[in-house]
Amino acid sequence: MYRSKTCGELRSTNSGEIVTLAGWVQRTRKMGGMTFVDIRDRYGVTQLVFNQESNSELCERANKLGREFVIQATGMVAERSSKNANLDTGDIEILVSELTVLNESVTPPFTIEDNTDGGDDIRMKYRYLDLRRNAVRSNMMLRHQIAFETRRFLDQQNFLEVETPILIGSTPEGARDFVVPSRMNLGQFYALPQSPQLFKQLLMVSGFDRYFQIAKCFRDEDLRADRQPEFTQIDCEMSFVEQEDVLQIFEGLIRHLFNYIKGIEFDGAFPRMTYADAMKFYGSDKPDIRFDMKFVELKEVVSGKDFAVFDSANYVGGICAPGCATYTRKQIDELTEFVKRPQIGAKGLVYIKVENDGSFKSSIDKFYNQDELKTIAALFNAQPGDLILILAGDTAKTQKALNELRLEMGNRLGLRDKNVFKPLWVVDFPLFEWDEDTQRYYAMHHPFTSPKLEDLSFLDTDPGKVRANAYDMVVNGVELGGGSIRIHDSKLQNRMFELLGFTPEKAEAQFGFLMSAFKYGAPPHGGLAFGLDRLVSLFAGLDSIRDCIAFPKNNSGRDVMIDAPSAIDASQLEELHLTLIPPATN
Amino acid sequence: MYRSKTCGELRSTNSGEIVTLAGWVQRTRKMGGMTFVDIRDRYGVTQLVFNQESNSELCERANKLGREFVIQATGMVAERSSKNANLDTGDIEILVSELTVLNESVTPPFTIEDNTDGGDDIRMKYRYLDLRRNAVRSNMMLRHQIAFETRRFLDQQNFLEVETPILIGSTPEGARDFVVPSRMNLGQFYALPQSPQLFKQLLMVSGFDRYFQIAKCFRDEDLRADRQPEFTQIDCEMSFVEQEDVLQIFEGLIRHLFNYIKGIEFDGAFPRMTYADAMKFYGSDKPDIRFDMKFVELKEVVSGKDFAVFDSANYVGGICAPGCATYTRKQIDELTEFVKRPQIGAKGLVYIKVENDGSFKSSIDKFYNQDELKTIAALFNAQPGDLILILAGDTAKTQKALNELRLEMGNRLGLRDKNVFKPLWVVDFPLFEWDEDTQRYYAMHHPFTSPKLEDLSFLDTDPGKVRANAYDMVVNGVELGGGSIRIHDSKLQNRMFELLGFTPEKAEAQFGFLMSAFKYGAPPHGGLAFGLDRLVSLFAGLDSIRDCIAFPKNNSGRDVMIDAPSAIDASQLEELHLTLIPPATN
Repeated sequence: MYRSKTCGELRSTNSGEIVTLAGWVQRTRKMGGMTFVDIRDRYGVTQLVFNQESNSELCERANKLGREFVIQATGMVAERSSKNANLDTGDIEILVSELTVLNESVTPPFTIEDNTDGGDDIRMKYRYLDLRRNAVRSNMMLRHQIAFETRRFLDQQNFLEVETPILIGSTPEGARDFVVPSRMNLGQFYALPQSPQLFKQLLMVSGFDRYFQIAKCFRDEDLRADRQPEFTQIDCEMSFVEQEDVLQIFEGLIRHLFNYIKGIEFDGAFPRMTYADAMKFYGSDKPDIRFDMKFVELKEVVSGKDFAVFDSANYVGGICAPGCATYTRKQIDELTEFVKRPQIGAKGLVYIKVENDGSFKSSIDKFYNQDELKTIAALFNAQPGDLILILAGDTAKTQKALNELRLEMGNRLGLRDKNVFKPLWVVDFPLFEWDEDTQRYYAMHHPFTSPKLEDLSFLDTDPGKVRANAYDMVVNGVELGGGSIRIHDSKLQNRMFELLGFTPEKAEAQFGFLMSAFKYGAPPHGGLAFGLDRLVSLFAGLDSIRDCIAFPKNNSGRDVMIDAPSAIDASQLEELHLTLIPPATN
Repeated sequence: MYRSKTCGELRSTNSGEIVTLAGWVQRTRKMGGMTFVDIRDRYGVTQLVFNQESNSELCERANKLGREFVIQATGMVAERSSKNANLDTGDIEILVSELTVLNESVTPPFTIEDNTDGGDDIRMKYRYLDLRRNAVRSNMMLRHQIAFETRRFLDQQNFLEVETPILIGSTPEGARDFVVPSRMNLGQFYALPQSPQLFKQLLMVSGFDRYFQIAKCFRDEDLRADRQPEFTQIDCEMSFVEQEDVLQIFEGLIRHLFNYIKGIEFDGAFPRMTYADAMKFYGSDKPDIRFDMKFVELKEVVSGKDFAVFDSANYVGGICAPGCATYTRKQIDELTEFVKRPQIGAKGLVYIKVENDGSFKSSIDKFYNQDELKTIAALFNAQPGDLILILAGDTAKTQKALNELRLEMGNRLGLRDKNVFKPLWVVDFPLFEWDEDTQRYYAMHHPFTSPKLEDLSFLDTDPGKVRANAYDMVVNGVELGGGSIRIHDSKLQNRMFELLGFTPEKAEAQFGFLMSAFKYGAPPHGGLAFGLDRLVSLFAGLDSIRDCIAFPKNNSGRDVMIDAPSAIDASQLEELHLTLIPPATN
């Protein structure tokens, strides 16, 4: 071992001990006849001292140390005269008697500091240097801890971690698969799993009873901040359970993680909200309930006053932003621009200010008199000083836009504190969603999701009305995970495939092995999966999941550090019996 | 929850309780007016009792239950009059008052019993049913436990588990990569990692200090019993360590696993053997030291007696099989056939029997008199009743053949008990191996392995003589894992690439990012990786790693259960700008 102690553990009680440390040079500074070198490792920073007078040769060598040199230093622990309270080891320093340079370093392209001078691109290219920074490394340590505690909790609950294969078959349903040509089975391809869904259901058929896996999953989708081509799920499945059992166990897991890792205890059970209510009051299936500002539907009360915008709209709804009646013309204009952005797509924004004297000032003064505005304001329980913001149009689009506006107001009012956590179960999702383009139903969750027994009768008459035993856990507006009770009855499963437009042949080709398995005694089962990347991001207060992944890819799916993907040898392609089609040049 | 208790937990102390169980029908039998149904889940088997007299309707329904039906039964726990000591729940039975069939089952293609009637092929196709068998499921439970305890041990030793990417770049060196075409980077490919080697070294450059990962690795190689296209490694790396530190930590891990999981304590440190001694005395770099039977080299003592086979051989060596002098002509012929098999390739087998009267009987009586045979026997310390077996020929091939013969004799003599475990470190591996075909050196371990400092001078004069800081852990003749101290000095690394025939350009293209990283202060580091599949197989006493993998592939790399790999849609290929070359038809 090149060291007897780490750079984070020495305290004044160690004074007088001879120790050897090894690590990186964080910085060096000369003061009078002394040279001070901060040596850093994963565990902390310790101050080394060299004295020009007592050992000039050694001190000269210390003076030549560059940033990020790897060194080994032996010396005596001494209590500092001026202690540094910002540093765990700030009470001591090492009076160095031996110094070895284990490796030199050229000057790094950015500073290894909490507030580095490096931009995103350069830090991605030199990710191995970025990972030296405390801020980045601590995210990885948190990730380790969350994964470890998740395993510990689930092991104690009798869950078995089972590794399911990475080289599986392609299933055209769902997102796009990454495929892997097989050399031993020419012309055929493996696919990388989008999730271990089918395998975990097979494990339930196998009687594994309680399964989990912290599993790598893959989707060849266009990327954005919270998507990576490979991502990690805490994937779980249980047998002989109903929805309530699954919610209880996994609420327990999340509670344990918050408590053990962040010291946060939640009072009482996590609140639950139906999908219908989530859409009605928040316009989102993942509402951020750190703040209230619920939607109020106004269609009825505002109709018939000759205001064409409202009269022609399917939906009119608004939110009440407390204390924002003081918003200037400019601020209102900003909000109007915000909702009119193409990603949000509202046509305009109506406001009603509740003035301090109880009167109303509004962009629709012409159509609604003070009494009428008062009636509207009462629906919001608006107080003097509040600002009511109203959108109108097609129901789904307008609710979505109003959700964005609500979140924006939450941000502006500082109501979305990253250190406040508000978990929520969203339940009773619809089983299907209708797609206008293809004029067919799609499974909202996946084709194995069980309908609610009490809604079974709608399967034939009005499939859109059938609710599923499906649930999502949402924290602070982030969908941490979700799952469902699965269909364990072959007949019901076949009916589902039919409704989803699978011919029996197509269902057999894609899910035949699961359908076969279900003939041999499938138990009632259900489960869920959490996104580990999102969970870590949430705990760390990160804006992008990239920051909690050791070696992430950029928005083009490239790892710019190792420069992958890349061209491969012609012989490799030949062995796989593949040729590349050159891209069209005109 | 569909049950209040599992099928494995009820004891006579539960008598009188009303319980609900859920599980699979293991078997049913009628005796007099009673029907007994064994219900099985992951946790055990419990006997259900139905009484024709007291509830004939219920009993009739129980009589109709088929094997592997999924049922739910409620009833009172009662102490059995005739207890079954072979069953954990054998003291009790359930007097059933309610019975629900949760799912039916068609008749399984083989019996779900410890000794099933199903052959390998059918069990692979219906793997989900095979996994219901105790023997198979217990391997998966052992795997979970080994993985979990490994994590717990390493977490306590300050190791951080870091996930490294699965979609990386291809490195033509080493085994063949699986490649993944990139849709977003047309004409380019990801590769699946053969190991996280480069990433773990980068994490050391990043100051992670102690890393591990239970990682999926991929090799597109031709398969055999102990190889799978995807396999799992316990991959570890440490900074600021020397070889001794690595051996200590990971001997500790293996010791912990044996102790915690199998209740086995090893006395003293694991023995260590140099690679040179392993080859000299066992003809293998993974000797099985559960039994002795060391090689004795005879070239010197047997030469010059006009026996051309020995005189012309580079190597003459033998083993002494205790108590085998009674072997018949037929048995000796069997052994001769054994060593002459093409996989082993010896030309013939010489024997010397030490008779009970102290005389010698040998297939080379014509060339060696009794005194000469006595001299040979003395080198083996052979006792009356022993059988000496001798092979001769080219050194490497003959040692390899003699190793096979030794293992065969160990098997015949019952010296290779699966319940006896003999761990061993093999150390001081050569840095390079010379390949006659390509007339160049190859890295025996990998190109980042550090030579021993004291052998550095041979790098230029006699590279074959340089020993590496590389080590393998071997248990019972199985290489459980291995690793090395890495080169952390760029100059030495460049010299290595040169010796391995890499041009600077090729080294840059393949390992450029690692070489760049090493310029920014790489610490001294080293590590190792254990094969999790092999470790579980060893603990479970399995002959193939397949049995400890939930969903393994066959020797053609196929998952016959899900029928993967398979053809993919033309549109998928098109999107990837790839075409298939039809196989040649003549």
